[in-house]
Amino acid sequence: MNLLHPKKDKLVEAEEKRKDLGFGTQITDPDTRLLNRDGSFNVKREGGTFWSRLNIFNRLVVCSWSRFFQLIVSFYLLLNLIFAGIYELIGVENLQGADLSSVKSRFMDAFFFSSQTLTTVGYGRIAPIGFWASSVAAIESLMGLLIFALATSLLYGRFSKPTAHILYSEQAIIAPYLDITGFMFRIVNERANQLIDIQVEVAMSILEQQPNGKTLRRYYTLDLERSKVNFFPTNWTIVHPITQASPMFGLGKEELVKLDAEFLILIRATEDTFNQTVHSRISYHAREIVAGAKFLPMFSDKVGSGFVNLDLSKLPRLRLK
Amino acid sequence: MNLLHPKKDKLVEAEEKRKDLGFGTQITDPDTRLLNRDGSFNVKREGGTFWSRLNIFNRLVVCSWSRFFQLIVSFYLLLNLIFAGIYELIGVENLQGADLSSVKSRFMDAFFFSSQTLTTVGYGRIAPIGFWASSVAAIESLMGLLIFALATSLLYGRFSKPTAHILYSEQAIIAPYLDITGFMFRIVNERANQLIDIQVEVAMSILEQQPNGKTLRRYYTLDLERSKVNFFPTNWTIVHPITQASPMFGLGKEELVKLDAEFLILIRATEDTFNQTVHSRISYHAREIVAGAKFLPMFSDKVGSGFVNLDLSKLPRLRLK
Amino acid sequence: MNLLHPKKDKLVEAEEKRKDLGFGTQITDPDTRLLNRDGSFNVKREGGTFWSRLNIFNRLVVCSWSRFFQLIVSFYLLLNLIFAGIYELIGVENLQGADLSSVKSRFMDAFFFSSQTLTTVGYGRIAPIGFWASSVAAIESLMGLLIFALATSLLYGRFSKPTAHILYSEQAIIAPYLDITGFMFRIVNERANQLIDIQVEVAMSILEQQPNGKTLRRYYTLDLERSKVNFFPTNWTIVHPITQASPMFGLGKEELVKLDAEFLILIRATEDTFNQTVHSRISYHAREIVAGAKFLPMFSDKVGSGFVNLDLSKLPRLRLK
Amino acid sequence: MNLLHPKKDKLVEAEEKRKDLGFGTQITDPDTRLLNRDGSFNVKREGGTFWSRLNIFNRLVVCSWSRFFQLIVSFYLLLNLIFAGIYELIGVENLQGADLSSVKSRFMDAFFFSSQTLTTVGYGRIAPIGFWASSVAAIESLMGLLIFALATSLLYGRFSKPTAHILYSEQAIIAPYLDITGFMFRIVNERANQLIDIQVEVAMSILEQQPNGKTLRRYYTLDLERSKVNFFPTNWTIVHPITQASPMFGLGKEELVKLDAEFLILIRATEDTFNQTVHSRISYHAREIVAGAKFLPMFSDKVGSGFVNLDLSKLPRLRLK
Repeated sequence: MNLLHPKKDKLVEAEEKRKDLGFGTQITDPDTRLLNRDGSFNVKREGGTFWSRLNIFNRLVVCSWSRFFQLIVSFYLLLNLIFAGIYELIGVENLQGADLSSVKSRFMDAFFFSSQTLTTVGYGRIAPIGFWASSVAAIESLMGLLIFALATSLLYGRFSKPTAHILYSEQAIIAPYLDITGFMFRIVNERANQLIDIQVEVAMSILEQQPNGKTLRRYYTLDLERSKVNFFPTNWTIVHPITQASPMFGLGKEELVKLDAEFLILIRATEDTFNQTVHSRISYHAREIVAGAKFLPMFSDKVGSGFVNLDLSKLPRLRLK
Repeated sequence: MNLLHPKKDKLVEAEEKRKDLGFGTQITDPDTRLLNRDGSFNVKREGGTFWSRLNIFNRLVVCSWSRFFQLIVSFYLLLNLIFAGIYELIGVENLQGADLSSVKSRFMDAFFFSSQTLTTVGYGRIAPIGFWASSVAAIESLMGLLIFALATSLLYGRFSKPTAHILYSEQAIIAPYLDITGFMFRIVNERANQLIDIQVEVAMSILEQQPNGKTLRRYYTLDLERSKVNFFPTNWTIVHPITQASPMFGLGKEELVKLDAEFLILIRATEDTFNQTVHSRISYHAREIVAGAKFLPMFSDKVGSGFVNLDLSKLPRLRLK
Repeated sequence: MNLLHPKKDKLVEAEEKRKDLGFGTQITDPDTRLLNRDGSFNVKREGGTFWSRLNIFNRLVVCSWSRFFQLIVSFYLLLNLIFAGIYELIGVENLQGADLSSVKSRFMDAFFFSSQTLTTVGYGRIAPIGFWASSVAAIESLMGLLIFALATSLLYGRFSKPTAHILYSEQAIIAPYLDITGFMFRIVNERANQLIDIQVEVAMSILEQQPNGKTLRRYYTLDLERSKVNFFPTNWTIVHPITQASPMFGLGKEELVKLDAEFLILIRATEDTFNQTVHSRISYHAREIVAGAKFLPMFSDKVGSGFVNLDLSKLPRLRLK
Repeated sequence: MNLLHPKKDKLVEAEEKRKDLGFGTQITDPDTRLLNRDGSFNVKREGGTFWSRLNIFNRLVVCSWSRFFQLIVSFYLLLNLIFAGIYELIGVENLQGADLSSVKSRFMDAFFFSSQTLTTVGYGRIAPIGFWASSVAAIESLMGLLIFALATSLLYGRFSKPTAHILYSEQAIIAPYLDITGFMFRIVNERANQLIDIQVEVAMSILEQQPNGKTLRRYYTLDLERSKVNFFPTNWTIVHPITQASPMFGLGKEELVKLDAEFLILIRATEDTFNQTVHSRISYHAREIVAGAKFLPMFSDKVGSGFVNLDLSKLPRLRLK
């Protein structure tokens, strides 16, 4: 029993009960989105150390394939140019078999000898003689092996990185649901590999004026018709029924825009090939809601075909009323 | 309290309570199986983008070993043919040591030079001279390294892919159990590596005529005698006792076939070598049930042998009454 | 309500409540241990297909290091012998630079050419000429790359395989605990890497004579003083207090041996370097219990030293009363 | 019912209820910290076997990058020196193309031949002839491949090792919170990759004098204002409100130092790129608490900028009252 400070514990209790997703209450600029459409956080970071910002492996694992190959080729060219320079300094005459007839051919053979060393192909038409050239070549071939080990790591990292290729409908809709209305969006698995045990959480974040005039950001979890399914072979329309208990009850699109409402969606699933847990995030801003539309069906189960037919290209299709 | 729309919330509640595994209620063609016997979903996908359908890594990880090696050898041949063609265009005389005496020998040496470059074996009997041949060889050896890195990734992916090699009895049976009857099937671990913490879920899906004449697919979870065991060293007969509470109560094989009943089975376990979670799925259609059969024992514990003897070949053995 | 078959449901209920770890009730030979001391199951498997029994990757990942290297060297020798044989068939004169002066030197150079091709070192002193020798060399170098990719996979598999190096006391003891007695054993982490969130489950399995004269194996979970700790930096003595509620109450070592009691222990933990879940199993047979002994302390916290000192070699030390 | 030994079961119950993180009650030297500031345990291990202490892979995965590369280069040099020695024993004249003109050049060419074999670059300027030199080279190239496979494993292990780069405030503070006070510390994610589902546990460990005069170490869990957030895009100040229910109630910094209070913090999160669970530990000793300070804000949400700005360098900033 707490006779002396009953007020204090009440405040603590209220604070403990407040829903917070981790964004806090202070992000109140209506131009500032919490979550970008691609699921990344809308935060700019400053002041970290060089190495923590560099974070090479992570970057090379998440960048696009075209960027990845571009970086590899640039790095290969650069390294060969550097080592060609070093062989020039030592003297290309220490590379047996190199064509010394012109400045250009000297550099060219130094460059190609470097590439043959780095990839450990080592034809031997050009081969190092003497201490310095041999030493540099010994170092370069070790570097080649390590770089190649790194490339293997990166490729495996890129491929084994668990990713939920979940496609979301472009817009969320507010549409009739049973005999009330519902907030809905639709998802489909882009890939042929299976996702199982899919869980969805939807939270609405709005700005609220406090009694003291200060504006705080508040978070409300939206109850879903179904928040978990075992299998996800076709599409899934996720529905928040706007009952009287819903924080969306009585709010139209305009009111939601005015409250700077942002719908934060977090999906967890298990990817079936590697049995890894995958996450997918998206947010719909109130501006991205279409009221009164309907999703068109994505799959057909023609009698006699013996299988279910799913058309991925129909995901974004809305029928406006 | 909800005085105004009591009906609405009831509908929402009913919808929320409805069991759904993720297949939805609309797949009502009795010829359309939900889950194939091998655990894959009976869904055909259309309209995805080229890259999402390609999904190379996933395919190369799940395809059979014979197909995998066939693809590798084809790819190796193809790449060498392409590069041999490029060296022909540049002029095979830029490959020092190549046999230029005939068209055939020129191409052959270009081809084998390519293979020696791609694998980075680089004997040097044939070696590139001049800018173009050397450049192409430098690119090819880089490609070789990356392809090899890819192969390492793929091999590791194939090997480390968590798979539950669970063998299922060919048929499910409806057989006497204690003093009622039970729906049963039997599983055994095909591999010598251990599975631990095995959990089983069984759902029955049937077609139900709605009051409005529409047919919907419904899902019922079947209670099991035991849905989880810690260890799985021998075989396990999974039993759904058909008590009066069971949705199968009073239904024979014919009735189940008429309802297009499909029994969906999902097993989760932990593989002991890599401590990965593994999943295994199967479905038995009502047509695959044998009524009144009995499973023959699979293991013997001969007095004095000091160990338990398990015979995997006895898994599908039924004794018909 | 179940008016017609009340007896039936009771049987089902009793069966559902029966504790079973997955070994079943039929293993009743007192000479047959359920779990071996090393945590493996005491089961012999027969009748699987060749491939399921082969299971190469798994075997190569779990076998000892000496066996692993022995297999690699044997495989390397064997492959080189086979390829040397093939080059002999084609004619060693197709290997430019090979010493053809004697039968022995021919074979030797074919063998070493093979090894230089398989490892892709390719010095080029010996190099293939002509279609057949070049083709075989092209195939061999591809095999070399794939085998090496496999070796990389295997090494990574061996190293990254999550293993709990938990050392157990040789014997379990029944010793005074508070003012009753307790069943105890002691564990320690053999490795310097940390285990966190360690959970222990202990079950006792005994043979029980049924009213019908049949002997069945029964399983009882033993309640522990503490079944989970967050950290495991030193040693941990796991205690089952033998209260009146314990299935061990009133049973001495002789009685336990007579009941063929086996204590099955399953430990789960999280390995801190790779944050993987690891498992460890062991069983103590009643014969391996020492009554009335005491474990000697394993660590000292000398005042002023500033750290805790743990001596692993003291794990098995018992003090007999 | 337990009529005979009611006292006994009470003792057992009390023991079962006692909070223990796994350090036990016996570490009572006030100079002995339980957890070091870097999250490692303050335990010295002795008496393990050589191999369990060696644990090469783990060490090479957790050591610093500079140490890692230093070890690789040393190992490369050492191996080449050893093999150069072996070729000297066999006779460098068995290395075709080696410069035999001086003792120094002989050894140099043996050394570089070794490096060209180990990295499988194999130029062929120097190539083995005869049985012994060829055999050693065959072994060395195999070793080269295996070492390189090991390096690939190590690099992948280093990169894929799940690590939570969580930065903690240098000090914990006791500061006003709502209208009571709170124990607080602040964390931020050092890396740009996301952490999700972050959970925090805080325990206080103090020395307690027992009625019998013995000093034991006791552990108390501290209730937190918020112990779990979904997202962690900016900073997070973790607060234990010091209500009357708190074990810290009424204790100032001096009292806490006297009790040898240590605050043990365990954070679990999911790293978003590889979806791995990561852990982070730290401890604050009572001596590292600052009473009456306040944390300065770390992020700004400037109106109109469109994103949230986070300055990592402001983490340790306290404002003293």
